[in-house]
Amino acid sequence: MSETKEGMAAKKAANFDEWYTELILKSEVADYGPVSGCMVFRPSGYAIWENIQKATDAELKKVGVLNTYFPLFIPERLLKKEAEHVKGFSPEVAWVTHAGDSILEERLAVRPTSETVMYEVVSRWIRSWRDLPLRLNQWNNVVRWEFRHPTPFLRSREFLWNEGHTLYASEEEAEAERDVILAIYKEITEGLLALPGQAGRKTDSEKFAGAVATYSIEHLLPDGKAIQGPDFHSDGQRFSKAFEITFIDQEGKKQFVWQNTWAITTREIGVMLAVHGDDKGAVIPPKLAWIQVVMVPIVNDENKEEVLKEARRLAGLLSIGFRVKLDDRDNLTPGRKFNEWELKGVPLRVELGPKDLKAGQAVLVRRDTGSKRAVKSSQLEAEVGSELETIQRALLEKAKALLEANIHAAGSLDELKRVIADKGGIVRLPWCGKASCEQRMKETAGGKIVNIPFEQGSVGKKCASCGELAKMTVNYAKSY
Amino acid sequence: MSETKEGMAAKKAANFDEWYTELILKSEVADYGPVSGCMVFRPSGYAIWENIQKATDAELKKVGVLNTYFPLFIPERLLKKEAEHVKGFSPEVAWVTHAGDSILEERLAVRPTSETVMYEVVSRWIRSWRDLPLRLNQWNNVVRWEFRHPTPFLRSREFLWNEGHTLYASEEEAEAERDVILAIYKEITEGLLALPGQAGRKTDSEKFAGAVATYSIEHLLPDGKAIQGPDFHSDGQRFSKAFEITFIDQEGKKQFVWQNTWAITTREIGVMLAVHGDDKGAVIPPKLAWIQVVMVPIVNDENKEEVLKEARRLAGLLSIGFRVKLDDRDNLTPGRKFNEWELKGVPLRVELGPKDLKAGQAVLVRRDTGSKRAVKSSQLEAEVGSELETIQRALLEKAKALLEANIHAAGSLDELKRVIADKGGIVRLPWCGKASCEQRMKETAGGKIVNIPFEQGSVGKKCASCGELAKMTVNYAKSY
Repeated sequence: MSETKEGMAAKKAANFDEWYTELILKSEVADYGPVSGCMVFRPSGYAIWENIQKATDAELKKVGVLNTYFPLFIPERLLKKEAEHVKGFSPEVAWVTHAGDSILEERLAVRPTSETVMYEVVSRWIRSWRDLPLRLNQWNNVVRWEFRHPTPFLRSREFLWNEGHTLYASEEEAEAERDVILAIYKEITEGLLALPGQAGRKTDSEKFAGAVATYSIEHLLPDGKAIQGPDFHSDGQRFSKAFEITFIDQEGKKQFVWQNTWAITTREIGVMLAVHGDDKGAVIPPKLAWIQVVMVPIVNDENKEEVLKEARRLAGLLSIGFRVKLDDRDNLTPGRKFNEWELKGVPLRVELGPKDLKAGQAVLVRRDTGSKRAVKSSQLEAEVGSELETIQRALLEKAKALLEANIHAAGSLDELKRVIADKGGIVRLPWCGKASCEQRMKETAGGKIVNIPFEQGSVGKKCASCGELAKMTVNYAKSY
Repeated sequence: MSETKEGMAAKKAANFDEWYTELILKSEVADYGPVSGCMVFRPSGYAIWENIQKATDAELKKVGVLNTYFPLFIPERLLKKEAEHVKGFSPEVAWVTHAGDSILEERLAVRPTSETVMYEVVSRWIRSWRDLPLRLNQWNNVVRWEFRHPTPFLRSREFLWNEGHTLYASEEEAEAERDVILAIYKEITEGLLALPGQAGRKTDSEKFAGAVATYSIEHLLPDGKAIQGPDFHSDGQRFSKAFEITFIDQEGKKQFVWQNTWAITTREIGVMLAVHGDDKGAVIPPKLAWIQVVMVPIVNDENKEEVLKEARRLAGLLSIGFRVKLDDRDNLTPGRKFNEWELKGVPLRVELGPKDLKAGQAVLVRRDTGSKRAVKSSQLEAEVGSELETIQRALLEKAKALLEANIHAAGSLDELKRVIADKGGIVRLPWCGKASCEQRMKETAGGKIVNIPFEQGSVGKKCASCGELAKMTVNYAKSY
C-alpha cells in the first residue's frame, strides 16, 4: 500500500527463483517473518487462502466430513508409536522443552501432522460399527523444520493446511473415498486456482511416512520442476494397529479400522503465483482474488468531479456482485495506478475517462492478456461478469497447454538424461516396478519418479532402466 | 456417538466443577488430549467455534478489518522488546529449543499473543499517513502455559481466538475504535451465545501486559465467580515506540502510530456451556448449535414404515432452513434417544408418532424448558423457526436475570466480606482509585476488581476501603 512501490526487475524466463521471490514481496501477498522459513501472509495472500479454504470446506461438508481441532503439541512417546511415521518426521520436528522457567518432563513435538495426537483420543470415541465411518478434518498450522532453503509458500517451515483423517469399517469403503477426495482437490486446483496437474500414485519409496499408498496431484513449475500438490494417503490398518483403534463389527467381532488421510496446503498459493505470474507481477485468478476489479478514474482538473461521480456510481453497482476497489487516490497518476494493480495481480481493470463518460462507456483491461475493450456503462455488470469468467477459463487453458507442452517421453536412461537436460519438465518412462531401477533413474538425471499417473496412456514395452517387461508408465521429473 | 452413553451424574448446584467437567465430556463437545491442559474440540464443539468465528469475522470485515497470518514462533529477542509485555508473558511461554537433532541458535517462543512478531514486520509496511489506518486480524492458536489447574475451554494451555491489531495516525481515531469493537463483541456474546456481561475498564493492576488501558466484558459463572470474556486494549504508542512503527504525517513530520489490540477466544464456549447447561446436560443456543433440530420418529412394528416415511419427509423440509438430524437408529428406544440429544444440548426436538401422523401434527419439545407443544405438520417449518427464536431469546433473558440477581452492593470492606461469603457474584463497590485500597479489597474477600463498569449507576460517596471520596463504582468478584 505504500506510495513509492517499484515494479518488478527480475525476469521470469531468465531467473525464475529471483523473479518468484521478488513477485511474492512486491505484489504484497507475503513477507518474511523474523524466523527464517516462517512466512507472513499479508491480507491479499491470506484472502486467497480464505477463498481456497471456504470452497474446499464447503465441498468436504457436503460429503459429510466433520471439522475438529486437536492440540498443537504431541508428546514424544506418542510420535514414536508408529515406526515408519516417526522415522519420516523426526528429523524435522520442532521440540518444546521448557514452559516458562520449568523444564518439561517429556518434550513435546510441535505437530508436523496430527495422526499420532489424534488417534489415541479418537480410539475412545469408537465402540461399534455404528460409530463408523468417522470422517474428521482440521484446518490448522503445522511445522516441519526443513533444513533446505525455505521459499515462501513453496517450502515454508510453518504452513497452513487441511488435514482429513477418516476411519472406516472396511478396506473397500476406505478405498472408495480416494476418488471422492481427489475429485474435490481437482475441482479446487483446476476450478479455483486454475492449476492443472498430474494425478497418480507415489512409488513406495516416495510415499508418506506411515502410509500404505500415497496419491498426489503433481504440478509443474515454470522452471521445469515438478512440485507436489494435494495428496491422499491410504493408511490401511497401520495406525489403527499402533493406536488400537478397534470396533465391534456386526457379527460381534473386534476389528481394526481402515484409515485415510489427505491434505491441501498453502503451497498451492505459491504454485498459483508462479504459474500465472508474468514480468509485470502477479496474475490472480478471479475466483481467488482479494480484489477482482479495480476501477481507475482518469481525471484532469476540469472534469474531475464529473468523472469521479460516475466512477463511484459504477463501482457501487459492481460491488453488489464482485470484489471491487475504486482507486480514487489523488496523489498518483493513472499510469502509476495501472502498474501497482498489475503488480498486485488484480484480474480486471476498469478505466473511466472524460471521453468514456461522454460515450456512455468504460474500458475493460484484462490483466492476463493486456487486451482492452470498451463496453457500454449500462451493461457493465454483465460485461465484467463474463470477462472475469473468460479470464478464469483462459488461465486454466494456458496453464494446461504449458503443462502438456512440457510432458515428454523417453524409452531409455540415455534418452531420459538428454530430455531432462534439454527440456526439463515431466518425462514419461516405462518402468518394470523394481526399486533398483527407480534408484538408477534417480541417479541418471537428478530427478525422481514423482508419481505413476492414473492416465497411463500407452505403456512402453521395456523398462527404461533394465529393459525387462515394463508394467507401467511413470512421471519422472526434477522435483521441488 | 457411542451406543451406551450414560447421562449426567453430577449436579450443577451442588458441585459446579465436577458437573462442568462431566458435561464437557459426556455431551461430546470436547475431550482431553494427551498433553495436560491441551484440549480436543470434538465436531459439535468445533462447530460452535465455527459459528462464532463466522459471525464475528463477517462483522469485522464489514468495518474494514483485514485478515492476515503471522508466524507461530517468536524469537526471544523480539518478545523482550517491550518490557511490560515480556514480564507479563514470560512465566507462561512454551519454548522451542531444538529442531530435529539440532539445537537452535536462539530459542523460539510459541506465540502467547502476536504483538511482538507482528510489529517489526508491519513497521515495514507503513510509510505515510496514506497507509493508515491499518486494521489487521488473525484467527489462530496461541499457547499460555498456565500452571494453575487447567479446565477445558475456561483455562486451556492452547486456545483459539481472533487477535485484532490496529494502527492509527491519531489517538482520537484509535480511541474511537473501542466502541465499535466492543459493540461487535457484545452482539456476538449476547446475540449468538446468549451470554450477558458487564462491560468496563480494567484497573491498572489488572490490565494487559503492555497496554495503556484494557476494557473487557466480564461474565459470571454459575459458581458465583466472574470470568473475563472478550477484551480490547488501548496500547497507545508503547509498542510503536518499542518497534519503531512510524509514519510521515500530512505536514511531513515523522510520528509514531497509535495502536489497539482485541480478542474473543474459545473460552466463550465454556462460559456458554456453564451458564446454560443443566442437570440433564448441555443447552446450546439455536444460533450456535451444530444440530438445531432433532427429529425422533416413535415407531412400533405395525406403523414403522409409515411413520419413518413422514419423518423423512418432514426432516427433509426442515433441512432447507435449519440444521436437522433425523434419528432413525433402530437399536435405541425413543427414550434413550431423547436422553442422548438432551445431553448433547440440541435446542429443539420434534417427535412424530402414529397418533401424530393421524392427526397431521408433530410435537415440539424445547430443550431449555422441557415444554411440549403439538403443531400442524403443514406449518412445521414456520413453527420450528419461531420456536428456535423463542429459545434463543429465552436463554439470553434467563442468563440476564441470573446475572442481575447476582450483582450486589457493598459500602465497606466488612460488608464486602459478608456479601462475598453469603452470596458470591459481583459486588459493586465505591472506590477512590488508589492502588493501596484495591489491594486491601483483594485481601479482604479473596476476589479482585474485575472491572470499572461503563454503566456506573449511582456512585457511593466514600471509598469502601479508606472512606475517602469515591471516584467510581467498581465490579468486585472472585475471579476465574
